[in-house]
Amino acid sequence: MSKNKFYSFAFGVGTKSNSGNWLEVFYPSPAFQPDDKLMDIVTTTLGYQEGNAAVEPSSEQLEKLASNLSAAGMNGDAALCKRLQQSAQSIVITMIAEDIAPETVPEVYLKLHLLSHRLVKPHETNLTGMFGLLPNVAWTNKGAIAIDELPERQLDARLNGELLEVMSVDKFPKMANYTMPSGVRVADTDRVRLGAHLGDGTTVMHEGFVNFNAGTLGTSMVEGRISAGVVVGHGSDLGGGCSTMGTLSGGNNVIIYVGDECLIGANAGIGIPLGDRCTVEAGLYVTAGSKVTVLDENNQPIKDIKARDLAGKPDLLLRRNSQNGRIECKTNKSAIALNEELHANN
Amino acid sequence: MSKNKFYSFAFGVGTKSNSGNWLEVFYPSPAFQPDDKLMDIVTTTLGYQEGNAAVEPSSEQLEKLASNLSAAGMNGDAALCKRLQQSAQSIVITMIAEDIAPETVPEVYLKLHLLSHRLVKPHETNLTGMFGLLPNVAWTNKGAIAIDELPERQLDARLNGELLEVMSVDKFPKMANYTMPSGVRVADTDRVRLGAHLGDGTTVMHEGFVNFNAGTLGTSMVEGRISAGVVVGHGSDLGGGCSTMGTLSGGNNVIIYVGDECLIGANAGIGIPLGDRCTVEAGLYVTAGSKVTVLDENNQPIKDIKARDLAGKPDLLLRRNSQNGRIECKTNKSAIALNEELHANN
Amino acid sequence: MSKNKFYSFAFGVGTKSNSGNWLEVFYPSPAFQPDDKLMDIVTTTLGYQEGNAAVEPSSEQLEKLASNLSAAGMNGDAALCKRLQQSAQSIVITMIAEDIAPETVPEVYLKLHLLSHRLVKPHETNLTGMFGLLPNVAWTNKGAIAIDELPERQLDARLNGELLEVMSVDKFPKMANYTMPSGVRVADTDRVRLGAHLGDGTTVMHEGFVNFNAGTLGTSMVEGRISAGVVVGHGSDLGGGCSTMGTLSGGNNVIIYVGDECLIGANAGIGIPLGDRCTVEAGLYVTAGSKVTVLDENNQPIKDIKARDLAGKPDLLLRRNSQNGRIECKTNKSAIALNEELHANN
Repeated sequence: MSKNKFYSFAFGVGTKSNSGNWLEVFYPSPAFQPDDKLMDIVTTTLGYQEGNAAVEPSSEQLEKLASNLSAAGMNGDAALCKRLQQSAQSIVITMIAEDIAPETVPEVYLKLHLLSHRLVKPHETNLTGMFGLLPNVAWTNKGAIAIDELPERQLDARLNGELLEVMSVDKFPKMANYTMPSGVRVADTDRVRLGAHLGDGTTVMHEGFVNFNAGTLGTSMVEGRISAGVVVGHGSDLGGGCSTMGTLSGGNNVIIYVGDECLIGANAGIGIPLGDRCTVEAGLYVTAGSKVTVLDENNQPIKDIKARDLAGKPDLLLRRNSQNGRIECKTNKSAIALNEELHANN
Repeated sequence: MSKNKFYSFAFGVGTKSNSGNWLEVFYPSPAFQPDDKLMDIVTTTLGYQEGNAAVEPSSEQLEKLASNLSAAGMNGDAALCKRLQQSAQSIVITMIAEDIAPETVPEVYLKLHLLSHRLVKPHETNLTGMFGLLPNVAWTNKGAIAIDELPERQLDARLNGELLEVMSVDKFPKMANYTMPSGVRVADTDRVRLGAHLGDGTTVMHEGFVNFNAGTLGTSMVEGRISAGVVVGHGSDLGGGCSTMGTLSGGNNVIIYVGDECLIGANAGIGIPLGDRCTVEAGLYVTAGSKVTVLDENNQPIKDIKARDLAGKPDLLLRRNSQNGRIECKTNKSAIALNEELHANN
Repeated sequence: MSKNKFYSFAFGVGTKSNSGNWLEVFYPSPAFQPDDKLMDIVTTTLGYQEGNAAVEPSSEQLEKLASNLSAAGMNGDAALCKRLQQSAQSIVITMIAEDIAPETVPEVYLKLHLLSHRLVKPHETNLTGMFGLLPNVAWTNKGAIAIDELPERQLDARLNGELLEVMSVDKFPKMANYTMPSGVRVADTDRVRLGAHLGDGTTVMHEGFVNFNAGTLGTSMVEGRISAGVVVGHGSDLGGGCSTMGTLSGGNNVIIYVGDECLIGANAGIGIPLGDRCTVEAGLYVTAGSKVTVLDENNQPIKDIKARDLAGKPDLLLRRNSQNGRIECKTNKSAIALNEELHANN
């Protein structure tokens, strides 16, 4: 791969611990498959050789880069570069030549940005080993703070009559402090991690949750939990408190997904992927090992099968018979009539 | 309707986008059916003609209004008016003559305030078309910000070593930043929208949630979700993670309510309204279409009916028989002994 | 009990209401069974007589105490004491001679700190009557504020173009603003109260919740709710949205606990304590009164018993038969293979 065919590129401003380790990086406008000419200028100016690199440029390099970008008519990038040069914060220029397992915190953050900026879909970028790379960070009203610096910072704040508000202690920050994709509402941003992919027309209500490398592809009302790795198709709704088993939990190696125009009822859950136009009744949890009785048009039992054999099949209605407790599967005839007003984002 | 019989009135301070559109309005002391004499002074001073109006007064108008209110002995209103006059923020005086569908953001906000200030109950004020009026707003530690201004604001903050904390991106703000009614605890204020109606003696725990135009009428321990439009009676408890189907979701046109002294168990859910003194067993979801076996005093089946036929009936105990999976309904004999210490708010 | 055998001691910095009542106290380094020599110096310097005391020292007392501690070579305590002396905030020195029912807000806060600092385990400290002692507080971005001062503070902030962000209105603050124990992640700190006990290796995900006087003893993935009084053993996982009945709710006087290496599935729930190596299937709520069919190795029914008779027994697999709706109990043979990468905290 030539250096002119980069996978991703971005200017970033981030936070380091007192010991000099990256805690997080904010990329205002990450690029996927960046322009060759742009990369020519960047790599030449910075003396880039090869591989994936997170360069911490000197003020002189930034100035020169801004000047070279401006000369080439790339005024947007030049202006951003100039603003970075004038900032006293930690600046990084991250160049990902190849989509291999990330090796630095700036690389991981750039890939998480690609997901949340909808430049790649879940599972489309290589995140192998990212858990080990990401430090556990205290996310506070004063920005990211290294865990071991927290007690002293809190005491100092309190003695000065201030509050160091610690919103989260986690390897992942919330998405909303990094980007908000268009046409999206997130009622409680604490519940959507950076690296979530939210399609245009998605509303994540207070009880909704979206992990990294997971999310929706289009219009969705999300009031349930989209676990790591789970992807939800266009026009599907997740009812309040419903659960999708993630690839990191549930003892399940199958990747769970939800097709288009599905409805998972409130407090329901799935341990199998769903095809298009499936409905799971409120309160019913279908695990891969559940035995399911398949019914015909007249509600007569045809056969008993494991739920995992229904994985990915379309047009299913899954319910628990309220007279005999049996989990049953019928052909789904009910259309999902989304409340137009409710789903409008703007 | 004479101009002297107003539905609601309030002085407000709010936020506008850079393009001059209202994003939100805070009304410190909204009035329901305001005093005629007060309205005489206000309308005369402002040159009000008729209809519902959200007037943005000039500094001179505010000064004159403060002076006129003071002359009439209305010292509280005069003092507030004077403080507004001295503020550099966007000021609005909202007069709702008739309770018709709102036409402006300040009107919608005033009605949401009426609900949360307990001046009207859910369903008692006309909110028709409000979704379309309300803009999607970024609720941040720097106040309300228009969505399209967010990226530049975040970049600017980060370059200055600050954090623009985005708490929510939604049409509705959280109630607690606008008002906290008396005798109420809300453990996680992210989960109660402005427009919620919380009765004196209500505690909303961390897993509780209350939407707008919904809420409680008296003492309640809320650890479950009160969806839009749902009203919960006095002395009723909603267990952790329980669900009530809202009028905006669930495919249900029936308005759901919960009577007095009910108990909905943890992780349970209802798709029918409940009368007084009903109990739904933990983990049981009763939808309108569930078939329910009615039992007599000796636990013998009397008949099978649809759950919707039990809508609003009092003294029901709904459970799933753990030996045959049948949903059953008995007469509820267990009193709800609320833990006195737990429910005390002060 | 001699004054030289104290139960607990700490220097604190806190917040008072305008009327002079304690709202909360932050203890940067609380001591359990503090050093006798330290207590000799403290009590002598402060003129302590007996009993449990929350002393508000004068500047002179703090200076003298710092000097005496320094002379005794207790440089850490001396330095902290000196910093407190230089602060303009409300300072308190709390000495708990005996572990009896607390009588002041500073005492309650010290005991909650002992729990969250892992100096005592849940149920090991006397919290009798604490609800009545703790005031309901508005927890804001400007620190703790008395409820009755909130409306004026919010109006004042808004007129100045600022936001008074009210994060919680509750008797308990969030733990993370007071201490973060080692080896712990808490994705959404709103959901862990001060007084929670989180073992080393515990991750509380966004849907997890931990009340005061409750928590984990070791490694755990907590995506469900740990109610007041509930203790979870080493290596146990709580699936997303699962419920544990607390001692304050559920109409249950039995203290619920979860043994070692248990797995409670997503959206499941327990109303009985679990012994070691138990699994509760996703979506199943087992209350104390549930009838359970015990199966043998060949899945043949042995007997029907009440779930409460299974309380605390190890190696159980609890599930609902998906063909007949019966709750069944088998011997649990499946090992819990925790995802190593997921559970690593650093």
